[in-house]
Amino acid sequence: MAVWISRRRGPDVAAELSESRSAAGHLAGVRLAVNDNVDVAGLPTTAGCPQFAYLPDSDAAAVAALRGAGAVVVGKTNLDQFAAGLVGTRSPYGAVPDSRRPEFISGGPSSGSAVAVATGEADIAIAPDATGCIPAALQGIVAIKPTVGVISTDGAVPASESYDCITILAATLNLADTAMAVLAAGAPARPWPTDVKLAAPPVPVIAIPDELPYLDDQWRVAFDAAVDTLVARGARVVSVEIEPFLTAATLLHDGALVSERYAAVGEFVDGQPAAALDPTVRDIITAARDVPAHRLLRDRAAVGRLRDRAMAALAGTDALLVPTAPVHPTIADATADPVEINSRLGTYTNFCNLFDMCAIAVPAGTAGGAQFGVTVLARAFEDAVALDVAALLVDEAPSASPWPLAAAEVVELVVFGAHLRGGPLVHQLTDRGARFAGEITTAPRYRMTALPTTPPKPGVTRVPDGVEGAALSGHRWLLSPAALGSFLAALPAPMQLGAVEFADGSWRTAFGCDASVQGVDISGYGSWTSALASGAVRQT
Amino acid sequence: MAVWISRRRGPDVAAELSESRSAAGHLAGVRLAVNDNVDVAGLPTTAGCPQFAYLPDSDAAAVAALRGAGAVVVGKTNLDQFAAGLVGTRSPYGAVPDSRRPEFISGGPSSGSAVAVATGEADIAIAPDATGCIPAALQGIVAIKPTVGVISTDGAVPASESYDCITILAATLNLADTAMAVLAAGAPARPWPTDVKLAAPPVPVIAIPDELPYLDDQWRVAFDAAVDTLVARGARVVSVEIEPFLTAATLLHDGALVSERYAAVGEFVDGQPAAALDPTVRDIITAARDVPAHRLLRDRAAVGRLRDRAMAALAGTDALLVPTAPVHPTIADATADPVEINSRLGTYTNFCNLFDMCAIAVPAGTAGGAQFGVTVLARAFEDAVALDVAALLVDEAPSASPWPLAAAEVVELVVFGAHLRGGPLVHQLTDRGARFAGEITTAPRYRMTALPTTPPKPGVTRVPDGVEGAALSGHRWLLSPAALGSFLAALPAPMQLGAVEFADGSWRTAFGCDASVQGVDISGYGSWTSALASGAVRQT
Repeated sequence: MAVWISRRRGPDVAAELSESRSAAGHLAGVRLAVNDNVDVAGLPTTAGCPQFAYLPDSDAAAVAALRGAGAVVVGKTNLDQFAAGLVGTRSPYGAVPDSRRPEFISGGPSSGSAVAVATGEADIAIAPDATGCIPAALQGIVAIKPTVGVISTDGAVPASESYDCITILAATLNLADTAMAVLAAGAPARPWPTDVKLAAPPVPVIAIPDELPYLDDQWRVAFDAAVDTLVARGARVVSVEIEPFLTAATLLHDGALVSERYAAVGEFVDGQPAAALDPTVRDIITAARDVPAHRLLRDRAAVGRLRDRAMAALAGTDALLVPTAPVHPTIADATADPVEINSRLGTYTNFCNLFDMCAIAVPAGTAGGAQFGVTVLARAFEDAVALDVAALLVDEAPSASPWPLAAAEVVELVVFGAHLRGGPLVHQLTDRGARFAGEITTAPRYRMTALPTTPPKPGVTRVPDGVEGAALSGHRWLLSPAALGSFLAALPAPMQLGAVEFADGSWRTAFGCDASVQGVDISGYGSWTSALASGAVRQT
Repeated sequence: MAVWISRRRGPDVAAELSESRSAAGHLAGVRLAVNDNVDVAGLPTTAGCPQFAYLPDSDAAAVAALRGAGAVVVGKTNLDQFAAGLVGTRSPYGAVPDSRRPEFISGGPSSGSAVAVATGEADIAIAPDATGCIPAALQGIVAIKPTVGVISTDGAVPASESYDCITILAATLNLADTAMAVLAAGAPARPWPTDVKLAAPPVPVIAIPDELPYLDDQWRVAFDAAVDTLVARGARVVSVEIEPFLTAATLLHDGALVSERYAAVGEFVDGQPAAALDPTVRDIITAARDVPAHRLLRDRAAVGRLRDRAMAALAGTDALLVPTAPVHPTIADATADPVEINSRLGTYTNFCNLFDMCAIAVPAGTAGGAQFGVTVLARAFEDAVALDVAALLVDEAPSASPWPLAAAEVVELVVFGAHLRGGPLVHQLTDRGARFAGEITTAPRYRMTALPTTPPKPGVTRVPDGVEGAALSGHRWLLSPAALGSFLAALPAPMQLGAVEFADGSWRTAFGCDASVQGVDISGYGSWTSALASGAVRQT
């Protein structure tokens, strides 16, 4: 069976699952497949090459985090050798077949991981992925590929070290998000900035390619349907020039960047007889040995220029939607022409890490007998934006607390008036990436007046000790420290921000106002929304 | 004369200077020397190699910015060919001698630029500098080498493109800072983050090396004197392990990173007869041709690991102080052993851009007949911190508005009480990199009460229309949006922040308070400081 390279004993897994369920971590009872280029203590790491195998005595950082939250390792999954492939056929442990139509490829490099999740043999899988989410798409599951560097790759066998990234595969977006939140709590190799966007705006603007080269005709229809779904669920769509993205994608495998692969495992490969390696993988890695450094520098400079053009094309948009894979080849096709098929598969994914983007692959129906998938890409650290857009595409509610909130610095602002969700000034928060986090009610120690401002705003002030106050309801927004600072810097008088006491006993940053401005007392309505509905306040 | 490669006619310069003085830009009447690897329209760019020369029809971006502010180009200065050297002797236009003792080297690569400023033939010079500030130190002048990427290198001949950086040389720190402010206003290749520190803290913590290998014994005394100066002016000094810094420095020239040089000008060099090039430079560049890419990747990974160690060593410190150059060789020494002398010169500078640090070189007296200089290094984007520390070393007042303020996003907070400079809570601002920006007085529309808080705080509230108010004086702090946001998020009741009206008609973010908290009216004192001095408020 080509899906697994090593598998733990069933009774051991069952016992651990039972223990995990009673401990009730965030991943209680979740069965975890680990791509066999990521260390699990006590199971061999082969990276798809038996001669390379070693027995690690500790878990990779990411595996340890998932186990710490209750996930139970089921086994180690097959992969394209040294993660050098997008096909799932480049392994001495056998080509991993598609979970539905065994004459087709599974996609790679995380072939076994994707199939294990697709068939239900595991709930989630963890795999380093330098390029995208091909096997997830072909297997009809979800993959979250975070911004490079925010999840530790310690304990993973490097493939293209500058671009390697821990990816989570799961059947649902919410489960993948939960697992990512567990991983994100660890110390990042790359710090989160202080101006992270925590949400897509209410009307996200989605870039779609002006052309879709190599895309299977039947899948073109499925892609259009995915775009229609986004529009139906409130997004706006704009066409962008895709050429700089696709040109960069070709550089990942056809240019000097392939020298990363020799840097990773080249010395090992040089020391092996030819028969010890997959012939295609061996060719890729040994050819990478002789690439001169100045060519690598020039290709990286070329990627930088393409990235500048690509980011300019994305200006004004929140995310980019592309087909994940353009075609679903058969194993026979992939075997007959291993290099060309592989390159074509990476058309829409290979630029992702080169451009320092985060990505989420989600299923988007079937077409031509095959599962079709799309990828939502966003700028570095805008993983929460990608997650919100991806949630529009699947029948899942967006996460109340997307995984970047477990890692990035987040502050809170409670609003009572024009910045309530749906209010006339809410764009001042949503444009800064603020995330709506629900309603909340103050301690019964406040009063609300209707201020004579334009637009009308409520003035919330604390009542002196001994005076009866009202409990007022407002909305919580989560935002970055930089967003809160720039919002405050632009805030006009008489509004002020400071700590307010809430019914749960907490004190949170919230709107107050300068007490010299007098207005009509509307505390009795309990909220600005009720006061407006009652007609007590004139709406502009 | 080896200092200049080309020079504009005296009367042309004089006429332009006169015009510049009447236009009164920030650099009115300032004479500018341009290193001859930076384009000036109408003057040839040689990069120290006559066969390479071309006649640009537009100014480099940085030159255009300086000219736009009134600087007048005097001419183009000699350099180590293709900026491949730290000695100033590697040029067919002649070795540039030290400005004081002509048998000694000038230092390089910006040899002519440094000497032109040292001798007063120019007021400032602009030069791309990948490694540090060697010639500035040897010539007894100041150099500001900003964070990589924040100043455009468009129109400069690349030397080691990943690390190239526009540097300003000047006789004084303040003039160099003024010129940097002009450059910083342009669009950066690398955006400033939203949490930039805008000042060194009141008691900066300065790291100094635990060992000083290769440092001339007489200069060791001068270095100790510079450390003593910092301590005398309020800094605290801690010793750190310098080994990871110095090990990385050796990788810049001795490792695979030298392939940057072939990527920059290798094809040109390959096409030239041997006699067309400085022999040492030719050897460096042609040897760089055959470095394999996987070795570059491994050396970069090694630099990354050394950087992690170095940054860990700097934890808790604000800046690092090192000797700029360890020795001042003669021209004869540099000619006799061109490679070894050059490497030794870079001991304390070559790690700077590899570690993504900013640097300022300042003179630190003379010793052993030679000018001695030290370098203040700080983390990426902490250029304002480096500037404040450097100001402690020279007899110049720190800049009221250091150059990063021209580029980074900056917001303002006016404080009236415990956050006044010298106040008990001011560390909440200075720990976040806030910069004191002077006193300011409100419009006469406010009142101040002494709040019953610990520590005691003033409550500033606006008086209602028609009621007489007081003009209250406070302190302005400049800070990053993230610093303001995190400060607000931690602010306890009853303090609030919002827009306050000032005597000059401006509205600025300032402290207010929740009006439900009553205190004794102390408006009549005009400021918290006066109220405290009067005894009207009990101090904790």
